[in-house]
Amino acid sequence: MERTITLYTNPYSRGGIAHWMLEEIGVPYRVEYLQYGTSMKAPDYLAINPMGKVPAIRHGEVVVTEAAAICAYLADAFPEAGLAPPPAERGDYYRWLLFVAGPLEAALGLKACQVEMSADQEMQLGCGRLETVLDVLADAVRGRHYIAGERFSAADVYVGSHLGWGMQFGTIDRRPEFERYWQALEQRPAQRRSMAQIEAAMAEYPLPGAEA
Amino acid sequence: MERTITLYTNPYSRGGIAHWMLEEIGVPYRVEYLQYGTSMKAPDYLAINPMGKVPAIRHGEVVVTEAAAICAYLADAFPEAGLAPPPAERGDYYRWLLFVAGPLEAALGLKACQVEMSADQEMQLGCGRLETVLDVLADAVRGRHYIAGERFSAADVYVGSHLGWGMQFGTIDRRPEFERYWQALEQRPAQRRSMAQIEAAMAEYPLPGAEA
Ligand SMILES: N[C@@H](CCC(=O)N[C@@H](CS)C(=O)NCC(=O)O)C(=O)O
Ligand SMILES: N[C@@H](CCC(=O)N[C@@H](CS)C(=O)NCC(=O)O)C(=O)O
Repeated sequence: MERTITLYTNPYSRGGIAHWMLEEIGVPYRVEYLQYGTSMKAPDYLAINPMGKVPAIRHGEVVVTEAAAICAYLADAFPEAGLAPPPAERGDYYRWLLFVAGPLEAALGLKACQVEMSADQEMQLGCGRLETVLDVLADAVRGRHYIAGERFSAADVYVGSHLGWGMQFGTIDRRPEFERYWQALEQRPAQRRSMAQIEAAMAEYPLPGAEA
Repeated sequence: MERTITLYTNPYSRGGIAHWMLEEIGVPYRVEYLQYGTSMKAPDYLAINPMGKVPAIRHGEVVVTEAAAICAYLADAFPEAGLAPPPAERGDYYRWLLFVAGPLEAALGLKACQVEMSADQEMQLGCGRLETVLDVLADAVRGRHYIAGERFSAADVYVGSHLGWGMQFGTIDRRPEFERYWQALEQRPAQRRSMAQIEAAMAEYPLPGAEA
């Protein structure tokens, strides 16, 4: 019955999302820190995630990649943690999980590449403009504690992480709706426990070029 | 108990994904065809999807947007259709659903905008290069009927649709793995029923500028 969980991550990465999720689940797991360009691209790890990216998890024989998929998988694999709504009530849960994994990620990517979108591209691309995506997300969290229903869920781990890291790194505007939503999530003991581990790993593995 | 399902779509759109999914579920639904730039941006519809994009569905009081979220939602809301694995066995199911909704959509968007990715961008962007994304997806479908386990699921509707439409429109290479996987899915009666409806709607609502 007991299947080991391994988290493959790097402290400076989207791996923090999966790390927080594992702390919310509250089962034991081990962490393997991989380095950019070296252990992330080694054959052992490419067998787990052929993209050579983190995060990934292994749970017994099951491998899951994609931070949002890891959140959804763990919520379902550990129902006793109560991190997903009942299957028949997952409209908002899937909607916002996918909205951030799809349109928000894509629009941030286009902006990072300094793309100026034409009106035609806005219509055809699944994301449209970053400003529109952020307007829609601000409406979705305005006045709410949680993005899907009245309970904290894996969708909050995923959406909250993107907003929190995005505001910290300046890729997402510090809108009041985002700050209020994130400030409450940030206080969660599981989020703090994952951050403490991530900060310790940052001290142990400084980013190449970032040494003091 | 009976809640009406409405599909908001346009025949020339990702709405075809949700349309096929509804045919697989096999419950009654009504279709509302919206037009680019006009009814898609009208206040009535923006109240449903503030992105002004299709598809969206309404199921009773529940609204779901994002084609992948609609697939996942419907599979869970209608468990008797057997279109999602049991909750504890959803590793591959979520992984590949999210892989296509995230990295594949994003990499196609960057390519459409003619972005030449630097090595640093490849590392930071959630998608990496389109060629890598397609290599990984080709490995995932090679020699398999279905993308998640031994049964057809909502993930096949979503992944298959992207590959099928992408190859038809020339945005995705016609790799043999993709063609074999898609050719089998394309034969499904539900896919054919949705295509027949979409083709009838294309005849009724030709794209502006595309009239013969
Ligand atoms: N779509 C993936 C993105 C993962 C990703 O891009 N991770 C970055 C760090 S945040 C990475 O591992 N980059 C290393 C590389 O591409 O070499 C997810 O959401 O999990
Ligand atoms: N991320 C959305 C993308 C939806 C989307 O971009 N739909 C296009 C048609 S395929 C659209 O409605 N465009 C109209 C517009 O942006 O004005 C999904 O996966 O459902």
